[in-house]
Amino acid sequence: MKVRRSNRLVDMTRYLLEHPRELVSLKYFGERYGSAKSSISEDLSIIRTTLADWGVGRLETLPGASGGARLTPLYAEENATRVIDELVAAVNDDSRLLPGGYVYLSDLLGRPEILREVGRLVATQYVDKDVDVVMTVETKGIPIAQSVAMYLNKPFVIVRNSSHITEGSTVSVNYVSGSSQRIKKMELSRRTLKEGANVVIVDDFLKGGGTLNGMQSLINEFGAHLIGMTVFAEGQFSGQRLVEDCTSLIKVTAEDGVNKKISAQPGNYLAKVFGDQD
Amino acid sequence: MKVRRSNRLVDMTRYLLEHPRELVSLKYFGERYGSAKSSISEDLSIIRTTLADWGVGRLETLPGASGGARLTPLYAEENATRVIDELVAAVNDDSRLLPGGYVYLSDLLGRPEILREVGRLVATQYVDKDVDVVMTVETKGIPIAQSVAMYLNKPFVIVRNSSHITEGSTVSVNYVSGSSQRIKKMELSRRTLKEGANVVIVDDFLKGGGTLNGMQSLINEFGAHLIGMTVFAEGQFSGQRLVEDCTSLIKVTAEDGVNKKISAQPGNYLAKVFGDQD
Repeated sequence: MKVRRSNRLVDMTRYLLEHPRELVSLKYFGERYGSAKSSISEDLSIIRTTLADWGVGRLETLPGASGGARLTPLYAEENATRVIDELVAAVNDDSRLLPGGYVYLSDLLGRPEILREVGRLVATQYVDKDVDVVMTVETKGIPIAQSVAMYLNKPFVIVRNSSHITEGSTVSVNYVSGSSQRIKKMELSRRTLKEGANVVIVDDFLKGGGTLNGMQSLINEFGAHLIGMTVFAEGQFSGQRLVEDCTSLIKVTAEDGVNKKISAQPGNYLAKVFGDQD
Repeated sequence: MKVRRSNRLVDMTRYLLEHPRELVSLKYFGERYGSAKSSISEDLSIIRTTLADWGVGRLETLPGASGGARLTPLYAEENATRVIDELVAAVNDDSRLLPGGYVYLSDLLGRPEILREVGRLVATQYVDKDVDVVMTVETKGIPIAQSVAMYLNKPFVIVRNSSHITEGSTVSVNYVSGSSQRIKKMELSRRTLKEGANVVIVDDFLKGGGTLNGMQSLINEFGAHLIGMTVFAEGQFSGQRLVEDCTSLIKVTAEDGVNKKISAQPGNYLAKVFGDQD
């Protein structure tokens, strides 16, 4: 069956979006549509310019027998700025204030449209790095890790804070919680992380940095490498943080005194990711 | 700027896929591309037939002033059968056997390509039901809940098995773990679930059904409604299960005796979802 260009464009766009960062051979598309390679190449160049024009993705075409097309979803600076502003507005809501100056974020981290934006933002940061796996610690970092992993098309691993039979044998580390100064334990299934793997750490909230620091120790125990750390929100913290270089999408200040007030603003993401281009 | 049909088709397909089950007005597309409504309608009908031909989604067009187009990602029976077979093959691996007859699945539930397939399968089951929210319990059900929520474009909520300051005020229930016969507690943030909401429960593994049963109690406590329950895998269980009607993508039998052996086969999903059409 020969498929017409208009139908090819729709199906190819869908296929490439649902297989992000996967090299798809021109031969595969050629056979799928009963079309000549030259037609497929023209289709791909239409897709490439359209994605670039709207600032939502990059389509690379690799020549040769082992070549093909690979779509990388990402955000151009203009889109990233708009999304960060939307996140700031969503968090800037005094009813999110919890006792002790904590901030309620569970609703946002359970909304698909927010998670898609967050995943795409964080993936954009690491798109030109050689990432093998995304790591987070249970529970609230998981949705972020999954969304980033979806866009990078790499697996994610969940560090547990207690032992579970279903994880098989594990490696565990002790760490100091930066905010409570207590010693805790976290562990990761042996099977999930390979020696030498390049790891991106993500989490929902950075306070003292103890949890992120714990994950760094785990990465060392596995003989893996840390590529970078990104959190959804960075809170205020009086004292020395246990991590130095962490990217944040937004910053939140919570006042739990007489005047209950939450104030959100953009984090250091835009400067870190797009800063050099200005 | 007037955008050509080929570029419109690429961008519209992308936009609709990234906003699944959202009604997008023809006016929005018309203004986005500087095109007449009639051209947009033609574009949409090309997208509709392409998605239907490949069995990957449904595009509805609602007429009138408040109308528009809505894309629902789903799997036709042929694709669903292929995916279930792939899942069975992936789990059919004796090295997944853990002490006590447990099955290691954490790697699969951290792989984006698997989660996309699982989410799309489960979403297909509930695509014509009025679902408000997807519910799961931490930790391993979360990736499944998130993926289903992505395709249904509805929020998901995570039931916690211990108290956390960042959840705000909560409602908790006690439940009996079906396999260990111990009393446990689970809780859900008050803010996450509204009275009368229609809830789909998902989880990674069904053994005795105690956890699913606990979530059912929580739904009752919130005055919400259960629409259905679906698990990734159903294990063997000697005795009376605590839930009656649960859909499973696959079934797993694990023998932890002298002959260590895992045997996976399709669950009741295909019969439940496509059974009436045969």
